[in-house]
Amino acid sequence: MKSDVEIAREAHLDEIQVIAERLNIPKDKLKPYGRYMAKIEGRAFEDHDEARGKLVLVTAINPTPAGEGKTTTNIGLAMAMDKMGKSTISTLREPSLGPVFGIKGGAAGGGYAQVLPMDDINLHFTGDFHAITSANNLIAAAIDNHIHQGNELGIDPKKISFKRVLDMNDRALREVIVAMGPKKNGVIRQDGFDITVASEIMAILCLARDLEDFKARVGRIIIGYTYDEKPVYVKDLEVAGAVTMLMKDAILPNLVQTIENTPAIIHGGPFANIAHGCNSIIATETALHLADYTITEAGFGADLGAEKFLDIAAPEAGFTPDCIVVVATVRALKYNGGVAVKDLGEEDVDALKAGFVNLKRHVENMKSYGVPVVIAINKFPTDTEAELKTIDELAVGLGVDVALSDVFSKGSEGGMELAEKVVALCEAPNSYAPLYDTNLPVEEKIEMISKKIYGAKDVVYSDDALAMIERIKKLGRDKLPVCMAKTQMSFTDDPTKLGSPEDFTIHIRDIRLSNGAGFIVALTGAVMTMPGLPKVPAANGMDIDAHGVITGLS
Amino acid sequence: MKSDVEIAREAHLDEIQVIAERLNIPKDKLKPYGRYMAKIEGRAFEDHDEARGKLVLVTAINPTPAGEGKTTTNIGLAMAMDKMGKSTISTLREPSLGPVFGIKGGAAGGGYAQVLPMDDINLHFTGDFHAITSANNLIAAAIDNHIHQGNELGIDPKKISFKRVLDMNDRALREVIVAMGPKKNGVIRQDGFDITVASEIMAILCLARDLEDFKARVGRIIIGYTYDEKPVYVKDLEVAGAVTMLMKDAILPNLVQTIENTPAIIHGGPFANIAHGCNSIIATETALHLADYTITEAGFGADLGAEKFLDIAAPEAGFTPDCIVVVATVRALKYNGGVAVKDLGEEDVDALKAGFVNLKRHVENMKSYGVPVVIAINKFPTDTEAELKTIDELAVGLGVDVALSDVFSKGSEGGMELAEKVVALCEAPNSYAPLYDTNLPVEEKIEMISKKIYGAKDVVYSDDALAMIERIKKLGRDKLPVCMAKTQMSFTDDPTKLGSPEDFTIHIRDIRLSNGAGFIVALTGAVMTMPGLPKVPAANGMDIDAHGVITGLS
Repeated sequence: MKSDVEIAREAHLDEIQVIAERLNIPKDKLKPYGRYMAKIEGRAFEDHDEARGKLVLVTAINPTPAGEGKTTTNIGLAMAMDKMGKSTISTLREPSLGPVFGIKGGAAGGGYAQVLPMDDINLHFTGDFHAITSANNLIAAAIDNHIHQGNELGIDPKKISFKRVLDMNDRALREVIVAMGPKKNGVIRQDGFDITVASEIMAILCLARDLEDFKARVGRIIIGYTYDEKPVYVKDLEVAGAVTMLMKDAILPNLVQTIENTPAIIHGGPFANIAHGCNSIIATETALHLADYTITEAGFGADLGAEKFLDIAAPEAGFTPDCIVVVATVRALKYNGGVAVKDLGEEDVDALKAGFVNLKRHVENMKSYGVPVVIAINKFPTDTEAELKTIDELAVGLGVDVALSDVFSKGSEGGMELAEKVVALCEAPNSYAPLYDTNLPVEEKIEMISKKIYGAKDVVYSDDALAMIERIKKLGRDKLPVCMAKTQMSFTDDPTKLGSPEDFTIHIRDIRLSNGAGFIVALTGAVMTMPGLPKVPAANGMDIDAHGVITGLS
Repeated sequence: MKSDVEIAREAHLDEIQVIAERLNIPKDKLKPYGRYMAKIEGRAFEDHDEARGKLVLVTAINPTPAGEGKTTTNIGLAMAMDKMGKSTISTLREPSLGPVFGIKGGAAGGGYAQVLPMDDINLHFTGDFHAITSANNLIAAAIDNHIHQGNELGIDPKKISFKRVLDMNDRALREVIVAMGPKKNGVIRQDGFDITVASEIMAILCLARDLEDFKARVGRIIIGYTYDEKPVYVKDLEVAGAVTMLMKDAILPNLVQTIENTPAIIHGGPFANIAHGCNSIIATETALHLADYTITEAGFGADLGAEKFLDIAAPEAGFTPDCIVVVATVRALKYNGGVAVKDLGEEDVDALKAGFVNLKRHVENMKSYGVPVVIAINKFPTDTEAELKTIDELAVGLGVDVALSDVFSKGSEGGMELAEKVVALCEAPNSYAPLYDTNLPVEEKIEMISKKIYGAKDVVYSDDALAMIERIKKLGRDKLPVCMAKTQMSFTDDPTKLGSPEDFTIHIRDIRLSNGAGFIVALTGAVMTMPGLPKVPAANGMDIDAHGVITGLS
């Protein structure tokens, strides 16, 4: 089979104006970035019927080294529904440059289920992440400058939680000392860089409703505390206006298309551990007004991304998901059943049965939200008839349908079965409600997620975590939803525990307040917020020739 | 008078396609960024007549706190020539976000001589500087990752000269320690951040002819030395391809328009101290093929920016400047004559005469290149008849014309006198030749610039500088041109020595090799490559409202 970039190069792309016209986006609301990308200005849907389209959430089992293909399934499903004659938009997160040059590579789907132009989307796209980097680092510069210029606010350099960011996998920046050298370089202190997608600005972009809301949230970010333990907000530094100005275009959702010319809106991309892992509310809201069906996705497995979509983003936005697709692969289920990566190509029905428990718990969790659920098996060439039949049989006991998806190899044609089932389920009874009432105490919210979604028997808090919960109560911000920062590899906080572990404890190591974004982060174990490059980075295999033809990007 | 942003808001902008059509740029060579900005793809001029337009260089006296208005004069001159019926393009450097949020504010002209849309141009524009930041920091991450992963090349962490960059005024990042913490964070070392415009990638962007040349130059960047003193190149890290891929759009020149719809090409913006301070060769080359007149500019005073344009950029590109405009103001000349900033509004003919020597030496220097010269006096409301008459009289002795320019208040109308003189001078005899033969020894090149342009009596080298000159000779790179890094405030290396100092020594503190860009940097005194924010940064006065209306940006 051809490589992603080869397939992409052979695709016929419509000019972005053509895609926009199909969605009835007024011409004056379209801000083109080249011929095939555009931002949608203002509320493009203002003149349209207020009736909303159906919302489909694509999530997955716990990620494995075998790969699940959640984004690919999302794109393929949208293409298949489009082919059925249903007006459909795929809404996705923007790729981060860090992983593109590291191990993961691009994040624009794969095979015959890609969003295009894949090279631009994977590189700078329309500059949103660069704007976030600038906005974040303007705040950081303002903090150190404020201290250097006399520190009127009394910021304690030892209590600054706001970090600098870069959209790069750069391990050397995780922990740094800044302001070395002469007095004019400022006040020396320990600091660190996160990757841009881990920035609170990114989370805010994805939860804000408009410029005004964005600015208010940025103003509320707590950058640290004073010597006498009072919170210091971005608004105290008087840069919330400048930061919002930097984001004036980044806040607009980006319109592109799939390889089969189905519209796609790609906007925002927060981490699914220390943030909520979903594309922007603005993007999804826009899509819901422009099309009859919107296919969105959430990062990592359903225990992280989908839980946060259902408990943080959807309640914030007022969305009701009409159907949830849980993606799994035969290979990943066998991996969960104990098969080593190198042996995943071999038929192993017993391992598949053993690993199915992971999928089972995710499906049960999703059903517990009251939303119709369907399993999508993202097909691989090594899958056997016996294995696929086993999944069908096991799914019967769960009371959910299974659809085989082969969009990677076949495009929309490979997604028709899933598309038909999704369309049907969108009409099924729906009693969606978030897992918890945000008015509950912080500990209770954490326990509900840990016990009901993860299956933990109890939750243990560090002293630091308990102290921070107290501080949050005193600040009157304990009614915010909880954003769990947990390994994506397991239901537990131990990445080696696959399948469906039971009788385990969740350890809350630390608590942070993302006061601007509007959630309380509960950290279990160490969460990596600045990845490193591998021994041979993906960057080393990338090139561009004299004619601008790119190789090595996938 | 109205503020810049108010004037900008009232302007009528043509759609960028209309501007492009006037220049006969084929539609398929235009890559729009919104409605009023576009990149010009490929060699837009390929199908045009190869006959080149005339090239006008706008430069100035030494910068003073009083301001000279070089960019404003460039823009106003282009507008006036356009009004005369001459096909003209203004080519300028892109503003840097750092100064926008610091003291300087925007850099898109002012009053009725602006390039538009000024907010976009001053903020992210088409993302070129962000691409440079990413490209630069990918190299930096690759360096530390290489060392962490076993250091096969034997890079000595104490001899790494390649720094990280951010497009931000952030004093705390000037000197940092990276890779603190556990072993997995890499090998601890001292490092620092420059502002993006000081990056060698920026200099390369502005000197490269095309993607291929860009990639070759990036590959040649020396990032540091091994334990046994061998140079380590970017190509050794195998990321020159990925870096060039990141720059695929940034290398294309940006088309915008002036407030009177005259085409402007704004591309690149290297420092005029440690780099050469001119917009990209690609931009100027493009303009020369699209219009009969191209008005370009060079950073700081004529001793820095213009010298480098004439000795580095023009020879590299094969350009012959047809006319040089030296911009001065009555106020700045009085400042050079010893008047304090607060008193510059008062008439003072004697001080003006005393300060004229600064302008005189710049004009004589420019004439020494064999190019016709004209003085532009950028008018201020406080200028008196007696003062303006004095300048006219003094200029007679120099054998050059003086034109009064009032484009800030009057737009093209205020630039007609200058435009007419420039058009005439472009037909005058021209014997342009660079100052020195690049085959001369490094010390001789430095001495020619120091003595003939600055007026120094001698040059003194530090031991470090002499050692580096030796190293460059051994590397066989001593035939490159010299890029002087000197204070912009004075002909000397002491910023307090105004006017036309004599009998002074230039101190070469250090020498650097910008091997990718292709020049040898001679540093006199400390050169600031990462500015800081002032006590009240310009950012604090900036805002954007719910409707996207920006205030405080100028």
